[in-house]
Amino acid sequence: MPMSASDIQLDLSQDPVDLTRALCDIESVSGNEGPIADAVEAALSRLPWLTVTRHGDSVVARTELGRDERVVLAGHLDTVPLAAEPNLPTWYEGDLLYGRGTCDMKGGVAVQLALAAAVPEPSRDLTFVFYDGEEVESARNGLGRISREAPHLLAGDFAVLLEPTSGLVEGGCNGTLRVDVTVHGKAAHSARAWMGRNAIHDAQVVLGRLAAYEPQEVEVEGLVFRESLNAVLINGGVAGNVIPDRCVVSVNYRFAPSKSVQDAEHHLRELFTGLDVVLTDAAGGARPGLDQPMAKAFVDLIGVPAGPKYGWTDVARFSELGIPAVNFGPGDPLKAHADDEFVPVQEIRDCLRVLTAWLA
Amino acid sequence: MPMSASDIQLDLSQDPVDLTRALCDIESVSGNEGPIADAVEAALSRLPWLTVTRHGDSVVARTELGRDERVVLAGHLDTVPLAAEPNLPTWYEGDLLYGRGTCDMKGGVAVQLALAAAVPEPSRDLTFVFYDGEEVESARNGLGRISREAPHLLAGDFAVLLEPTSGLVEGGCNGTLRVDVTVHGKAAHSARAWMGRNAIHDAQVVLGRLAAYEPQEVEVEGLVFRESLNAVLINGGVAGNVIPDRCVVSVNYRFAPSKSVQDAEHHLRELFTGLDVVLTDAAGGARPGLDQPMAKAFVDLIGVPAGPKYGWTDVARFSELGIPAVNFGPGDPLKAHADDEFVPVQEIRDCLRVLTAWLA
Repeated sequence: MPMSASDIQLDLSQDPVDLTRALCDIESVSGNEGPIADAVEAALSRLPWLTVTRHGDSVVARTELGRDERVVLAGHLDTVPLAAEPNLPTWYEGDLLYGRGTCDMKGGVAVQLALAAAVPEPSRDLTFVFYDGEEVESARNGLGRISREAPHLLAGDFAVLLEPTSGLVEGGCNGTLRVDVTVHGKAAHSARAWMGRNAIHDAQVVLGRLAAYEPQEVEVEGLVFRESLNAVLINGGVAGNVIPDRCVVSVNYRFAPSKSVQDAEHHLRELFTGLDVVLTDAAGGARPGLDQPMAKAFVDLIGVPAGPKYGWTDVARFSELGIPAVNFGPGDPLKAHADDEFVPVQEIRDCLRVLTAWLA
Repeated sequence: MPMSASDIQLDLSQDPVDLTRALCDIESVSGNEGPIADAVEAALSRLPWLTVTRHGDSVVARTELGRDERVVLAGHLDTVPLAAEPNLPTWYEGDLLYGRGTCDMKGGVAVQLALAAAVPEPSRDLTFVFYDGEEVESARNGLGRISREAPHLLAGDFAVLLEPTSGLVEGGCNGTLRVDVTVHGKAAHSARAWMGRNAIHDAQVVLGRLAAYEPQEVEVEGLVFRESLNAVLINGGVAGNVIPDRCVVSVNYRFAPSKSVQDAEHHLRELFTGLDVVLTDAAGGARPGLDQPMAKAFVDLIGVPAGPKYGWTDVARFSELGIPAVNFGPGDPLKAHADDEFVPVQEIRDCLRVLTAWLA
């Protein structure tokens, strides 16, 4: 039964682990963020030092203290669907909190909310963004929607996305690009194969170049971004008795943020010289921005060297807005979306402690 | 508008080229053989020296003269669909008769019918088989249906299928076998490709072995059968951001009739040693049988050396019944099914002349 806003009272002053549980137990699979957005909006509205704006099923809360700098702390409210063996409500196993959303990313959202409640007079102005639609196609992403319709709500000098990073700082992200490489042949009946030319056999050239390719590791602003180049789909042939006249290999290139989309496309066109290459999809990466003074100060405070983020994340949206951004949050990113999703409860407390020390 | 039997009167004594035109102009795409079967049945029933049996939309007509030997002359009544630019009714261009069915195989059917009408007292007993459903899946093949339900109708010492061979004798046919070769990998997000194993990249081993394979030419009873081995389908991957954990290559082997299906399967399992190979489809070939005295006499009469048939044809059905069979008919086999299908009219007359000389 869906819950309504009136059912849920979030106590932001409670232990952040209990707050994580309370947030997880409001089921909020993408498309059903209404109840949790209502609860978050209601709880933040009780804090007089915040200006709260509702935008669809996203909520933005800002201090307006006239500080020189503004930090944006962002997290998404939605989760991927429950596991086949439903993993809600949450449960403990020792010091691990299990269940959908514990890792990705209600632990981070709890840290945002606890921080908002605990620090009425932060050292920098703060913007808390809680958004919908992160786990689905890009067009439904709440952060993207706000950046198009109300970009002033996202203004800031530095952003922290509280996505799971096991408490490390991950900066920037690789770009991603897809091409279709098509090999052409000549159709014939397979009983007279010598009258045709087999496009699938000829596709071995494409696979051979991919298998022999040595992906680069590219240092960008002190972080080493590991690239990759992979066939993700292959399709050829029309029937069991026809020599195929066409084989299409879809290739995904994840490239370091020091390269533009044009650089990356040029690189693939060189690699597949002589073949029919069509660009189908591309998104640039994001430079880590860790040479910015506030980012540097943040990393120094954490006391652990920053690492690169490999996947394309919403960090790139902030990058497009000219705001350096990092990922920093509780939970092992490899447990995001997993059937046995969990978060070590200590990481939630550690994350809150570090951010409070930085911003109080 | 579909024609009914009462509309069509076939004159079997007319010039066989005119008879070919009349047969073609009864549209008989597979599934719609009723009207042409009615017309053929009616025309043959007017010949008192023949015993006519209707079997579905197939017609069998037999002499019962008590000769020592019996020759079966067989042809199918159906055609593939018309070309996009409809190629019926037929038309002439010089000495070529154009239109659907002219080559495959109303020219051959006209020869059968003209022979039936012209030779009331043949030197061997004759069985004329006109069957439906040759151009579609094997389960609908009229010759197969008769061989299962009324095999006595097909009894004989030698069979001639009047499929187009440009007036040459083609003996036997290759077997055909299909296997799926599956390459297994390990799925991962393509942003962290190094955590998976790419099954499409690994499929280069399969394509490499196929591209390097040198098909054999195998002499069987004096005819050289050219084999072939081809990937006909390839499929791998699930999404644009996932390292594929599976790639399936479907391989078609056309093998000489001196090999059994078991031999052929063994050969492929050796070639793909170490890979996951599953047999999906197989049909044995047919030896040419040209060492049989009547087949030999027939080839000597034609005066042109016999050649091998590459495609799997209904010759193999006769072979399974223990009846040596050859293909011999008017028309270039490469024009079968073509949009510009045609038959050189002289080949129809030559074919009838040769068979009349042999059987009169």
